[in-house]
Amino acid sequence: MREIGVGLLGLGNVGAGVVKLLAENAASIEARIGARLAVRAIAVRERDKRRLVDVDPALVTTDVRAVIDRPDIQILCELVGGEREALEYTLRAIERGIHVVTANKALLAVHGEEVFAAAEKKGVDVYFEAAVCGGVPIIRALREGLASDRIEAIYGIVNGTSNFLLTTMAEERRAYADVLAEAQKLGYAEADPTLDVKGIDAAHKLAILIMLCFGVPIRVEDLFVEGVDRLHPIDFEMAARFGYVIKPLVIAAYHEDGIEARVHPAMIPTGWLLAAVSGAKNALYVKSYALGPSLYYGAGAGMMPTAMAVVSDLIEVTRNVTAGATGRLPLRSYQRLQEHPVRPMDQLTSRYYMRFAVLDRPGVLGQLTTVLGDHEISLAQVVQEGPRDPNRPVNVVMLTHRAREGNVRHALHQLGKLSVVVESPALIRIAE
Amino acid sequence: MREIGVGLLGLGNVGAGVVKLLAENAASIEARIGARLAVRAIAVRERDKRRLVDVDPALVTTDVRAVIDRPDIQILCELVGGEREALEYTLRAIERGIHVVTANKALLAVHGEEVFAAAEKKGVDVYFEAAVCGGVPIIRALREGLASDRIEAIYGIVNGTSNFLLTTMAEERRAYADVLAEAQKLGYAEADPTLDVKGIDAAHKLAILIMLCFGVPIRVEDLFVEGVDRLHPIDFEMAARFGYVIKPLVIAAYHEDGIEARVHPAMIPTGWLLAAVSGAKNALYVKSYALGPSLYYGAGAGMMPTAMAVVSDLIEVTRNVTAGATGRLPLRSYQRLQEHPVRPMDQLTSRYYMRFAVLDRPGVLGQLTTVLGDHEISLAQVVQEGPRDPNRPVNVVMLTHRAREGNVRHALHQLGKLSVVVESPALIRIAE
Repeated sequence: MREIGVGLLGLGNVGAGVVKLLAENAASIEARIGARLAVRAIAVRERDKRRLVDVDPALVTTDVRAVIDRPDIQILCELVGGEREALEYTLRAIERGIHVVTANKALLAVHGEEVFAAAEKKGVDVYFEAAVCGGVPIIRALREGLASDRIEAIYGIVNGTSNFLLTTMAEERRAYADVLAEAQKLGYAEADPTLDVKGIDAAHKLAILIMLCFGVPIRVEDLFVEGVDRLHPIDFEMAARFGYVIKPLVIAAYHEDGIEARVHPAMIPTGWLLAAVSGAKNALYVKSYALGPSLYYGAGAGMMPTAMAVVSDLIEVTRNVTAGATGRLPLRSYQRLQEHPVRPMDQLTSRYYMRFAVLDRPGVLGQLTTVLGDHEISLAQVVQEGPRDPNRPVNVVMLTHRAREGNVRHALHQLGKLSVVVESPALIRIAE
Repeated sequence: MREIGVGLLGLGNVGAGVVKLLAENAASIEARIGARLAVRAIAVRERDKRRLVDVDPALVTTDVRAVIDRPDIQILCELVGGEREALEYTLRAIERGIHVVTANKALLAVHGEEVFAAAEKKGVDVYFEAAVCGGVPIIRALREGLASDRIEAIYGIVNGTSNFLLTTMAEERRAYADVLAEAQKLGYAEADPTLDVKGIDAAHKLAILIMLCFGVPIRVEDLFVEGVDRLHPIDFEMAARFGYVIKPLVIAAYHEDGIEARVHPAMIPTGWLLAAVSGAKNALYVKSYALGPSLYYGAGAGMMPTAMAVVSDLIEVTRNVTAGATGRLPLRSYQRLQEHPVRPMDQLTSRYYMRFAVLDRPGVLGQLTTVLGDHEISLAQVVQEGPRDPNRPVNVVMLTHRAREGNVRHALHQLGKLSVVVESPALIRIAE
């Protein structure tokens, strides 16, 4: 039986899962592709670290180049993460005519064009199903399943940590810091959770999705990004009362004048399928011209789900190799990457949820609504909550009709300066 | 630019959608595949019928073979439906080395093995994304996205008509016949709805899914099939009270001793994602070893969604043709089709919902529970509803703990014969 040599960079969580899955499902994989996937070498940072899986020590090395430069490797599985080193390794492999399977969203979000251009030049495959939504095969859905369609908009929950945090806050009405500490203990959040809770990881994934869905190259720093770390339990309570759930969303839409692209927590109606995506799960909701709405749901992270996507990519590349058809799905020409501006966030029109902690003095509501009215922000609902005590703040919550983001932010800036407003106002966009 | 010739059999709803989509998205499709998809001939039954799309009359013929036998056609798009003729045309195309894209579930469910064997022998591609769940790319997800995984069980809503009927019955608490009549008016149900409401269409799709998920060839007549046409509004009311929704499900699972395979309406917990799949929408929930649960949702029927899947398949086959890689995804060897028995339905263990219309006489409940107890059926909940009038029936509703289907059916048969039981008892399986 033909053997396809695989070089593995990284033997952390996902790397160990890949080794495990290749071993456990070897027979069925071989029957599917008529070839054997053989891991020929594994590069690690620390040689003697304890691993989640047993591997032949003879395969393990700390010399990454020795892995990439082996003559018996056809596919490089890049699982080191990060940007710089991953880019160097990936380009080196491509240069040597080695196909690449990667789970690295940061690499592709930031250096995707360079990587895909190099791959196309060398006729080499780069597959990256695990980079967005972990094991959920949405890259395939977008590149192949919906290849004949025109995607209009996407709404995604693509960061499992953030979704876990917001789900727990919603269910248990606990404070953010408290829930984060628990998530860190359970392994749902990193010791340094910045990448996840500040929306950076989600922004990387959104950049890849925009490239796939709209054929537009985008710079991560052009995306509007707001983290989930400033939400307050009362906002979850209010959301529920109005028939909404707060979810950590990525949103993108194609407009003639520019791409709408944003990462932020949003209120969504409880009846929407995305509202039922809870815990650490991920999902992507796609609105396209011919199909209408479709949704793809599953585990967006974790050892085995991510490894599953990586090994399915190895299978796919092997199918291409054995059929002599590598490069059959070129990303760039498929994508027709062409510049299209990102719409300034100020131009967004949306409905908004606002919460003001104010001193309960006569005329306060009038002050608030006057400023809002001056900014062409009209209100759909107003609720006032809290103790009737002129020296303690009460919460005034408002749902607006469609308004312009620029106006909303300007109004909030002004309102934040009023003496009766005792905290900086909370603002959550409503996605419908 | 290279042209790939397409022959179209059928210019109904889906055929018209294919022509429309090919025309509308021609530029983006060409940019993606570096080739042009040219419809060279269209076979129709009636030449002069009004069509949903304008086509060059010179392309249209009533002679199917003249289409298949054209030397300038590389892909046949089979959209005639039915079994016999479709099989003949498909095999003829394959024999001539022409690739086939089909939306025909009946053809593949009944003659799949023959078709795929012929295709593999000739190195010809057969793609069929539209055959299950319409535009939702679940065939790709199962064959490629989850290729490295081991699927354990699937739960699907694969018949849009049935889902529309049950959703409307649940929301409006109206009788089946009434809702069906409306669905027929709205075009959600055929004039003769048998294939849909009796579960036959769903059974065809389940047979294809079982082949894909478990690599097991299955005969449609070996599946347990129960339609949605005997549900009563009160069952929807009771379901809601117990925290369930009634959905038209297909269920399959792999067990060492046989395949569990069944088509029937089932009660599912309201919190489950499948419970939120309403109207005519379809979804497939997959449980697999490495990924865990995943779900794929969207339009399972309709002109443009189905056409979208067909045209995406045309794109896929074209990618194979231009890369010289046709046959790169052979179904049979991928599938390792091997016989595995279907588990007899009597061996199922499940929780059940039962409803008895009984005369409100003393001791009735005792009679019921005694018979159930004799069959090792223990009860989780009992509710009695209805007028306190010894001459009019009341509804006694029971939720059981896990019990054996064989015992349940035997018990119900006996209970149906009791003089106090005035209607044949209602039985709905609970899926969890």
